[in-house]
Amino acid sequence: MYIDDTIAAVATAPGEAGIGIVRISGPNSLDIANTIFRPVSKNINILENPRKLIYGHIIDKDIKVDEVLLSFMKGPHTFTREDIVEINCHGGYISVRKILELVIKSGARIADRGEFTKRAFLNGRIDLSQAEATMDIITSKTSASFDIAQKQLEGKLSSKIKEIRDILTLDLAKITVAIDFPEEDEPEVTYEELLADLKKIKDEIHALILSFDKGKIMRDGLKTVIVGKPNVGKSSLLNAILKESRAIVTEIAGTTRDIIEEYVNIGGIPLRIVDTAGIRETEDIVEKIGVQKSKESIESADLVIMMLDSSRELTDEDIEILTYLDNKKSIILMNKTDLAQAITDEDIEKHTHGKSVIKISALENKGIEEIEKEIEKMVYEGELQTENDIMVTNARHKNSLEKAYTSCCDAIDALDSNIELDIAETDFKIAWDSLGQITGDTVSEDLLDTIFREFCIGK
Amino acid sequence: MYIDDTIAAVATAPGEAGIGIVRISGPNSLDIANTIFRPVSKNINILENPRKLIYGHIIDKDIKVDEVLLSFMKGPHTFTREDIVEINCHGGYISVRKILELVIKSGARIADRGEFTKRAFLNGRIDLSQAEATMDIITSKTSASFDIAQKQLEGKLSSKIKEIRDILTLDLAKITVAIDFPEEDEPEVTYEELLADLKKIKDEIHALILSFDKGKIMRDGLKTVIVGKPNVGKSSLLNAILKESRAIVTEIAGTTRDIIEEYVNIGGIPLRIVDTAGIRETEDIVEKIGVQKSKESIESADLVIMMLDSSRELTDEDIEILTYLDNKKSIILMNKTDLAQAITDEDIEKHTHGKSVIKISALENKGIEEIEKEIEKMVYEGELQTENDIMVTNARHKNSLEKAYTSCCDAIDALDSNIELDIAETDFKIAWDSLGQITGDTVSEDLLDTIFREFCIGK
Repeated sequence: MYIDDTIAAVATAPGEAGIGIVRISGPNSLDIANTIFRPVSKNINILENPRKLIYGHIIDKDIKVDEVLLSFMKGPHTFTREDIVEINCHGGYISVRKILELVIKSGARIADRGEFTKRAFLNGRIDLSQAEATMDIITSKTSASFDIAQKQLEGKLSSKIKEIRDILTLDLAKITVAIDFPEEDEPEVTYEELLADLKKIKDEIHALILSFDKGKIMRDGLKTVIVGKPNVGKSSLLNAILKESRAIVTEIAGTTRDIIEEYVNIGGIPLRIVDTAGIRETEDIVEKIGVQKSKESIESADLVIMMLDSSRELTDEDIEILTYLDNKKSIILMNKTDLAQAITDEDIEKHTHGKSVIKISALENKGIEEIEKEIEKMVYEGELQTENDIMVTNARHKNSLEKAYTSCCDAIDALDSNIELDIAETDFKIAWDSLGQITGDTVSEDLLDTIFREFCIGK
Repeated sequence: MYIDDTIAAVATAPGEAGIGIVRISGPNSLDIANTIFRPVSKNINILENPRKLIYGHIIDKDIKVDEVLLSFMKGPHTFTREDIVEINCHGGYISVRKILELVIKSGARIADRGEFTKRAFLNGRIDLSQAEATMDIITSKTSASFDIAQKQLEGKLSSKIKEIRDILTLDLAKITVAIDFPEEDEPEVTYEELLADLKKIKDEIHALILSFDKGKIMRDGLKTVIVGKPNVGKSSLLNAILKESRAIVTEIAGTTRDIIEEYVNIGGIPLRIVDTAGIRETEDIVEKIGVQKSKESIESADLVIMMLDSSRELTDEDIEILTYLDNKKSIILMNKTDLAQAITDEDIEKHTHGKSVIKISALENKGIEEIEKEIEKMVYEGELQTENDIMVTNARHKNSLEKAYTSCCDAIDALDSNIELDIAETDFKIAWDSLGQITGDTVSEDLLDTIFREFCIGK
C-alpha cells in the first residue's frame, strides 16, 4: 500500500455555493501549501501556525488564482493522521478545479474515492465499521439514518464486536495451550467453560443479526410506492405527508427516465417514497404505466400504499391490483370520504384480504395521522424502539455476523459431541476472523478496495 | 436596514461530499458557538482562539449532533466585517441541516440570498461591482469567465470608474462655486476646461461600453448550437471539441425537457454549447425537432455550427436551413471528407452565401483546429485580446455607462451652445450619479435587493 504519497481532492459537493474546499493529505502537504500560497501578512509562517485560517491567495506563477483561507493541520492529530492542508476558496466549478490542478502539478496525486477515510483507517484512527459509518453519515437522507450512523461512528458497534471477540481471543489462547500441553493435570480450559462462552456469544451475535431488518430500514429507508387510479388523490396524499416532514428530494442518476425519491420521517421511520411515474406531475400512475407496471413497482417496494376512490365503484383494475398486495407490507386507503360513498364495507372486506384499511380525505388532510400510526405499527410490530440499542445497518456486517454465528453453532456441536479440541479450534478461529472483518482487524486489501470504492470523492 | 442581527446559512453546495460548512455572521455568532459547541479539549476558549480550527462536537441538549471543526473570526477583519463563525461538519444533506436548525434555534436568522456579500458591501469591505464579481466567480463555468471576474473583484473596474468619477466630482465642485459666486473676476472654471474633461471622460466611457460585447461573451459564453441532419456527425464533432477542453456539463433546472449545456474554452473564448435535442444521445436534431425547431434554435444562438454530410447530396431541408444562417455568426462544416464527395464546390458556393466553409472529418479528428481558429477570428474580428484591458461584463454596468455617456454628450452640447452653467450642471450630476450606481456609491435599496436576489444562498 502506497501510504507515503500525498493525495488531494475537492472535499465539498460540486455546485454554485459560497465556499469550496480543496483538501490535501500526506507528507508533501506543507511543501505544496508553501509553493502555491501567499499569505497577505507576509511574515506568517504556515508551519508555525497550525490549525489557523490564514488569509491569502493561491498563486500560479505570480498570477493570483483565488482569494482563500488556508489551514495546515499537523499529523498525527488529524483525520488521516497525516499532515493535512485545507484550502477554503470560492465555491462554484472553476476555483476548486483550478486550485486542485495546481496542487496536482505541485506534487500531489488525485485521491481515490474514500481515500482520506481509508488512510484514517489504515493509520489506526478509526476502525473499518467507523469508516463505513462516516460514509453513511454523508449519504443519510433522514435524521434517523444520520443518528444511527453517528452512533456507529462513535464506536458503539465496534465496542460490542470487540467485547465479543475478546472472549474468543482468550478462549483461543487457552485452547492453544490445552492442545500444546495436553499432559498438564489441570487442563487450561474445560469444555464446559468454552460451551458457556460460546452460548453467550451466540446469543449476542444473534441479537445483532436480528437488528439488521430494522437497521437496514433505518439506514436506507423503507422503499414506499403509492399506487392508484388517476385522480384518486395520490398527489394530495404525497403533499400531505411531505408537509409533515420537510422532504429531501433526490434524482437517481444514470436513468434515462428520471426517478424521483423523496425522503420523509414517519415516527422516526425513514420512508423513501419512490415516484416512478411522476405522481406529482401527472397524477396518473396506473393510466400511464399500466396495471403490469403497477405490479412491478409493487413487487420492488417494501411498503405499498394503495389508494382507492371511495366515491367511485371498484373497477376490475382496482381488484386486480389489490390481489398483488398479498404478502406485502401494505396499507389500503379509502380516499374522498368527504364525498358520497360508492364502495361498501362489504366490497372492501371481500377484496382486501384482511389488510389494514384506513378511511381518509387527503384533500381535507383527514386521516394522515392514522396512516402514520399504521406504518409505525407495521414496522416496529408493536415493539418499542429503544434508543440505545446497537443496530446493524450494513449488509456486509450482517454477513460477517452470520458466518460467526454459524461457526459458533458448529463449535458448540463439536464440543457437545466431545470431538477433539483442535476440530473445535477451527470453528473458533473462523468466528474470530469473521468478527474481525467488521472492525477491519482481519481484512484483505481486495475487500478494502471494494468498500472504499463506494465512497464519495474527497472523503 | 437590519444590519445588527445575526444570520446563518449553509455555505457549501448541497450534495454528498466530505465536508459541509454552516456559516454564521453577526453580533451573536460567538454566543451561538458557545451554546452549541463543545470542544474536545475542554479548556479551549473560542474567543481567545480566533481563526483557529477547534475540534469538537455540536451539541443539542447534551446529545452529540456531529463531529466538527469550528472557527471564530473576529470582526472587522472578516468577509462581512462582522464576527463570523464557520462550522466544518460532515457533508451530505442532514448534518448541515441539523446544525443550521440548531443555529437558528439559538438566535440566528436564515440569511437571504447573497446576504453575507451584501453585508460586506454595506459595511464597506467591497464595493457593489466587486460584490457582483464575487457572484460571477462562483457561477463562472470557464477559466476565461473566472479570470475576468477575479479582475473585477480585485477592483480593476472600480478603480477606473472612480478615476472618471473623481474628475466629475471636482468639476461639479467648481461649477457650484462658479454658480454661487458669479461675481468673481477670475471664474473658478472655464467652459473650455469643462469641455476638455467631458471629452476625455466621454471617450473613456465609450471604450468601456464597447468592451461589453466581448465582456458579455467572456462572462456568459457564446451560446452555440450545432445543427445538421441525422448521422451527419454532430456527436463526433461535439466529442472532438469536448476532448480538447474538459467540459463542465450542467442541466438547466426548471425545464421539463432537460437542456444540457456544455462549457468549453476555444482559444480563451467560452462556448456554451446548448444541446436542446440531446445530440449526444440521439444524434438526430433535425429529424427529432424538425426544420421549424432548428430555425428557432438557430435564432436564439450567438453562434451556429451547421454540419453537412459532404458524401451525400444537399437536400431541400439543408438548403432551407442554410438560408436561416444569414445575419448569424455561423460556420458551415463539410463533414466526412474521408468518403467519396457528393457535394461540389459549386453547390456550396451557391447556397452558403459567402459564409465560412471548413472541410473536416469529425471521425478522424481532422479540421477541428481550423474550426477553433475560425471561431477565434469571428469573435475577436482580428483584434488581439489584451490581457490587461478592463472589460465590462455586466449588463447593469453597461446601462449605467450608457446613461453617463448620454449625459456627457448632453453636457458637451450645452456648453458648446454657451447655455447657462446650471443647465449643464444637471447633466454632470446625472453622469456622476450613473457611474456611482456601478460601484454602489449612489444606489437605492430596491436596486440592492434586485441585485442580491440573484445570488446563491450562503454567499
